[in-house]
Amino acid sequence: METDTARERPADARGGRLQRIFPVLDWGRHYGTGTFTNDLVAAAIVTIMLIPQSLAYAMLAGLPPEVGLYASILPLVAYAIFGTSRALAVGPVAVVSLMTAAAAGSVAQQGTPEYLVAAIALALLSGLMLLVMGFLRLGFLANLLSHPVVSGFITASGLIIAISQAKSILGISGSGDALPELLTTLARNIGDTNWPTLVIGVLSTAFLFWVRKGLKPLLMRLGMAARPADLTAKAGPILAVFASSLAVVLLDLEAKGVKTVGSIPQSLPPFAVPDIDPALWEKLWVPALLLSVIGFVESVSVGQTLAAKKRQRIEPDQELVALGASNVASAFSGGYPVTGGFARSVVNYDAGAETPAAGAFTAVGLVMASLFLTPYLASLPIATLAATIIVAVLSLVDLHTPRLVWRYSRMDFAAMAATIGITLLAGVEPGVIAGVVVSLALFLWRSARPHAAVVGRVPGTEHFRNVKRHKVLTDPRILTIRVDESLSYLNARWLEDYVMAEVASHPELRHLVLMSSAVNAIDASALESLEAINHRLADAGVTFHLSEVKGPVMDALHRCHFLEQLTGEVFLSQNDAFSSLLERAEAEATPAPRPDLWLARGLI
Amino acid sequence: METDTARERPADARGGRLQRIFPVLDWGRHYGTGTFTNDLVAAAIVTIMLIPQSLAYAMLAGLPPEVGLYASILPLVAYAIFGTSRALAVGPVAVVSLMTAAAAGSVAQQGTPEYLVAAIALALLSGLMLLVMGFLRLGFLANLLSHPVVSGFITASGLIIAISQAKSILGISGSGDALPELLTTLARNIGDTNWPTLVIGVLSTAFLFWVRKGLKPLLMRLGMAARPADLTAKAGPILAVFASSLAVVLLDLEAKGVKTVGSIPQSLPPFAVPDIDPALWEKLWVPALLLSVIGFVESVSVGQTLAAKKRQRIEPDQELVALGASNVASAFSGGYPVTGGFARSVVNYDAGAETPAAGAFTAVGLVMASLFLTPYLASLPIATLAATIIVAVLSLVDLHTPRLVWRYSRMDFAAMAATIGITLLAGVEPGVIAGVVVSLALFLWRSARPHAAVVGRVPGTEHFRNVKRHKVLTDPRILTIRVDESLSYLNARWLEDYVMAEVASHPELRHLVLMSSAVNAIDASALESLEAINHRLADAGVTFHLSEVKGPVMDALHRCHFLEQLTGEVFLSQNDAFSSLLERAEAEATPAPRPDLWLARGLI
Repeated sequence: METDTARERPADARGGRLQRIFPVLDWGRHYGTGTFTNDLVAAAIVTIMLIPQSLAYAMLAGLPPEVGLYASILPLVAYAIFGTSRALAVGPVAVVSLMTAAAAGSVAQQGTPEYLVAAIALALLSGLMLLVMGFLRLGFLANLLSHPVVSGFITASGLIIAISQAKSILGISGSGDALPELLTTLARNIGDTNWPTLVIGVLSTAFLFWVRKGLKPLLMRLGMAARPADLTAKAGPILAVFASSLAVVLLDLEAKGVKTVGSIPQSLPPFAVPDIDPALWEKLWVPALLLSVIGFVESVSVGQTLAAKKRQRIEPDQELVALGASNVASAFSGGYPVTGGFARSVVNYDAGAETPAAGAFTAVGLVMASLFLTPYLASLPIATLAATIIVAVLSLVDLHTPRLVWRYSRMDFAAMAATIGITLLAGVEPGVIAGVVVSLALFLWRSARPHAAVVGRVPGTEHFRNVKRHKVLTDPRILTIRVDESLSYLNARWLEDYVMAEVASHPELRHLVLMSSAVNAIDASALESLEAINHRLADAGVTFHLSEVKGPVMDALHRCHFLEQLTGEVFLSQNDAFSSLLERAEAEATPAPRPDLWLARGLI
Repeated sequence: METDTARERPADARGGRLQRIFPVLDWGRHYGTGTFTNDLVAAAIVTIMLIPQSLAYAMLAGLPPEVGLYASILPLVAYAIFGTSRALAVGPVAVVSLMTAAAAGSVAQQGTPEYLVAAIALALLSGLMLLVMGFLRLGFLANLLSHPVVSGFITASGLIIAISQAKSILGISGSGDALPELLTTLARNIGDTNWPTLVIGVLSTAFLFWVRKGLKPLLMRLGMAARPADLTAKAGPILAVFASSLAVVLLDLEAKGVKTVGSIPQSLPPFAVPDIDPALWEKLWVPALLLSVIGFVESVSVGQTLAAKKRQRIEPDQELVALGASNVASAFSGGYPVTGGFARSVVNYDAGAETPAAGAFTAVGLVMASLFLTPYLASLPIATLAATIIVAVLSLVDLHTPRLVWRYSRMDFAAMAATIGITLLAGVEPGVIAGVVVSLALFLWRSARPHAAVVGRVPGTEHFRNVKRHKVLTDPRILTIRVDESLSYLNARWLEDYVMAEVASHPELRHLVLMSSAVNAIDASALESLEAINHRLADAGVTFHLSEVKGPVMDALHRCHFLEQLTGEVFLSQNDAFSSLLERAEAEATPAPRPDLWLARGLI
């Protein structure tokens, strides 16, 4: 059992505060040669995969390709120190790159130095926000993004990204944060299509799709074991990079209008303190916040999925700190916003990474690439990078989940549809905001109009069920209402209306019981409404009772005067309530002996 | 019974759509001489009370005194046509006047024509918003203002209003929407105190307080019946108006620096189509929205209180329409925002008003006053009006409720304290917003971290209770978790963490039961979390069961694949679950006959 719980709760079960902030102190102590070898192998594989991916996502964000490499180095080291997931790999990812492009594009023109400054400022701001949220333990704020909203947002973003890359495949220009502008600019320029670029783009895309689906089975048929075949297939894009670069050089395609990555500075990331410009921060804080939350949710989902496979756990609040540190590290090394990416993390995990040290080794690999490999990337066609992006993001587009959600819950579907629709039509920021607002509004709306039922006794049992769903015993003098929700300010007024309407339609009523088995809390507003109901029922000659009140609710009611004012009783069980009120109603029906009347009538 | 329900549900039980929109068609059909007389008497009394009050509130809103009269005429007629409350009287009220001053003051200087234009635009905007909300049946939006927030807001506004009137009592100048500015300007100018003004102000205030507390008992001791004594006392302010005006004229106090109301135009309200200026509307829409919601909540509270006394009901959505029409009417007759006021409505009710026609008669009274009485008000000292405001608003200040709320619920108190604090320190608009945001945040926070308990069987019963609160039977191989909240996206992640942590600390566990008696709904995010829990428990060799799932929740689960994937069962009752899992665990503990092993071991 000892080892088991230790694995289950990596950070908080043992060790003190320092280990909680620096999980590296925890796993670092047990680091051995076996783990080292496994981590090193994983790092080598991930490095090969990350080189084209980093360049491609930088391009998607509208930034020079080397910025993608820079953003993949120091953040990995920062995450290795602060992160709680053993396999998560941070760096540029598709959705965050798109959000960066939208935010930086709102303050500067792509290709200008100001645009790069804005992207770096976004990383710094987002990093600081994540750190603050982590220290304040605000990880639960990510809850505001429901699963359907996140799923819808990622699908819509994936579509926008894929369509935006069409311009690079066609060799034309095009722009826009959302579909309407994107499609119009593409349609306007489609006449400028560069045919050699299109051929490279289409071939690369087709090849990469085939690599995804067909290469692994082929390798296995050729006798390779499943796992190495899988990893080789994951490295497929590097083959596309190599082949298309070679084609450009041999056929002199640059002269024929094929755009290439061009010369990339052969250097370490440019370590520098980012500019702190309050005017710029004021413009960027909203997108930075959205980007932080989306990045966090994406990263935590990936981390949890991978951790669950090994019965490990991740600590969401500590993940905020780790992602915050990664983004600050990115900003200080000339990078742009990063988060834990699905593709790279899965490759890292599948390649056998055991600790975050694998991330640090990948960083070393990417430093090597920045220093020695960049000259060989100059002839890489942009269209090939676009193809890697399209193939990567189309796997994010999920058209199956909307159908499942539609069948399961129309309210969740409404939130999802709003997110997809507004993301496609107006862009990523309005899309996320719409999703959060619609989910929240529907949640509040549902809380404000809870399910309630008049209940009666199931014959021969002590159970009470909805009179509309079951054949049950009731009495015209006794009405029991079961409210299936906590009573709060959101539904307090509804409760008053509901109860008084039921009372109005039961003219013989003498006793009303509020069955509180599903009432987990009563806030001050609802308490006032109960007082008002008690008062109005008294005016109407109806006694007000409660039944099956939960312990914590009863504790709260003892802290106020409601129980003293209550005209009726609080019954432990609904069965007690019904039985004794029935007796009482019978007793009331038979007139009690009245000696005063007998005296008045001369009977005694 | 017939008459009873007819009274209970005035608009929607009988009559069609037209009657719902024009409740006047409903009560107007049964209008007779008795009702007419009662309404007329009530109208006369309310008119006398409203004259000084209308002037005073206009002054509080920073507007010329006659605007208060105008705002009291047409809105009453509009409400008489559309309103569902029999006794509610609409017109200028203290809190809305203060909010008008804050909003109009943010776009223009008090005393300028632009300021009046802004106040009229506020009435129009607010009226249109209320109408739209009414047609869309958005009355439930008022739920967002919890009782503690409204109570705190009114107390804080009352304090600000009372303190702001000190300047008129002292005869100095002072300004500010919130305490810090208000107190500094008052302190700076206190040297300019005008002594005759101060004497009038202090005497008027003392007299009005005495009228409130002492006049009714005195009149009753003099032999007057309780109800006329009460109504005469309510008309007390008119005496102060008369006496102080006389003092000004006789002692020529205007020459000694006592500020008076001055000449008021002797005319009907100026009927005119208000200016529609999009730039102004853009600046005023937020304050107009806040003002609409606050006004609506105040009005509905008053209306419900009075309706309940006669077992009548009001229709909140129709009230939105009525208040909207009243505000539009106010704007078209040169008035400013109005709502249902507590003081005037209570007087109307106590004076015997039976239908909204009393309001229409009051309007006629006020037209007479505007035409014939205004010359006599020229010498009325501002200090006397300030005294009527102070006495009126100090009754709104409620320092008892915060203590009760503190004892009952710290979360409600936090929302209330935030509202009071921010209203006092930063003004009415930030105060309302803070109240709504804090209530909502706390509600969401509570929903995100619901109460949950591990439960066991109470010996000798079929009841299951919290292991921490009761002595109950449990088994190390079976764990039952009861979650006391609906499962939603806000607590889905929490649920995963909670369940997995409990599983990690129970090494012998074979069966986990989620007791769902308090789960009223499961949204798509929570469903995904349940699927994740099911999956992870399967990996850990633990079977996942549900018990006591409610009907509507079960219906929803049948619309997805969860029940097919579930490793365990859905038990109708928790007792069934515990009993049969206990049997099963026992059976698993005794090795089953294994003929294959016997064969292998050569036993058979």
